[in-house]
Amino acid sequence: MLINILAYQGMTMLDAIGPYEVLSRLPGARVQFVAAGRDAITSDTGFLTFLPACELDAAGQADVLLVPGGPPERVMPVAQDPAVQQWLRQQHEGSRYTASVCTGALILIAAGVITEGGVSSHWMAADTIADMGLAYTGERITRAGKVFTAAGVSAGIDMALALSAAIADRDTAQAIQAGIEYDPAPPFPYTGDDPAVRELAGTLLQDSLG
Amino acid sequence: MLINILAYQGMTMLDAIGPYEVLSRLPGARVQFVAAGRDAITSDTGFLTFLPACELDAAGQADVLLVPGGPPERVMPVAQDPAVQQWLRQQHEGSRYTASVCTGALILIAAGVITEGGVSSHWMAADTIADMGLAYTGERITRAGKVFTAAGVSAGIDMALALSAAIADRDTAQAIQAGIEYDPAPPFPYTGDDPAVRELAGTLLQDSLG
Repeated sequence: MLINILAYQGMTMLDAIGPYEVLSRLPGARVQFVAAGRDAITSDTGFLTFLPACELDAAGQADVLLVPGGPPERVMPVAQDPAVQQWLRQQHEGSRYTASVCTGALILIAAGVITEGGVSSHWMAADTIADMGLAYTGERITRAGKVFTAAGVSAGIDMALALSAAIADRDTAQAIQAGIEYDPAPPFPYTGDDPAVRELAGTLLQDSLG
Repeated sequence: MLINILAYQGMTMLDAIGPYEVLSRLPGARVQFVAAGRDAITSDTGFLTFLPACELDAAGQADVLLVPGGPPERVMPVAQDPAVQQWLRQQHEGSRYTASVCTGALILIAAGVITEGGVSSHWMAADTIADMGLAYTGERITRAGKVFTAAGVSAGIDMALALSAAIADRDTAQAIQAGIEYDPAPPFPYTGDDPAVRELAGTLLQDSLG
């Protein structure tokens, strides 16, 4: 089972690594980070540089296509790249499942892979999704047929567990959950609906970009 | 603020990327992946290869030292490497905080950085920790002075949020939590205390190693 993860300059690593960690434990899984060029990929912060496995044309047809997100200024050029768009449409046509995390949904929308209905994404992207003519659901995971979209960054873990149950079965997904000891216990309540918290979150994110 | 993350062949990526994603958003944070050699680092599954920022000697004194885990057969050679042990002891001496995720605790114990008391780690490592003369707490996060240890893999996110509150303040940590939209909602209950689930988890993990 081939899992192709789109890799691009300025991507947010946890968007990809959360699902990678879950999906790579599925029996028979092979995960590839696939990029539009041969260059090493540097994350949004500038602190991690990795080597994609192959370029778009060499990737082969994915069983699972996954698109991680990143800051808008790094996502938009990728979303508007015709070669990436064409590759995503082709991969999606033959995929068993197609998934996005965070602002990865914007890339799938721009490519015409998602054309209607509701999508999950980062709360920062809610207006952009509305501008693109789709509905931001505000849900942690939104499933529409074979397409799974997840909320921001860490939501890819939840999404990938749901996707694993769909690909394999619930017992397998729960064993993977045990393997990554995903029994989350944030040390304080989530306050991300508070406008003041959102403003500080946006500032911290912006200031951390490499 | 310099955050040095130990990188080594066969490490589990989410152990490092969870905390990286949180800590890199702290004001003034600079994160370095530091390795014992110049080679690119390949993760436990074999599916991700990245370039460490520098070698041990070139890393500079960390404000925060972080040690991720991995499968026992990949962790143990690192834990027993005298150069790594010495580097960890030196870094820990000058650090403001020292942290591990998952079986990274075994590396800190082997280096003599943690010498007594309770530690969090992956449930799979509970017996090994007892064999090393320490107490596995079974907690998601254990704090002993300036040392934070986390449970398996995904627990590094929870730990890093607690650590962020200690480094900065709770408002900052909660804003980072909002930034990575960490409002976890696993699609099914955690069953990792069930021996049958643990057995399947161990098999899936073993079969996924590259």
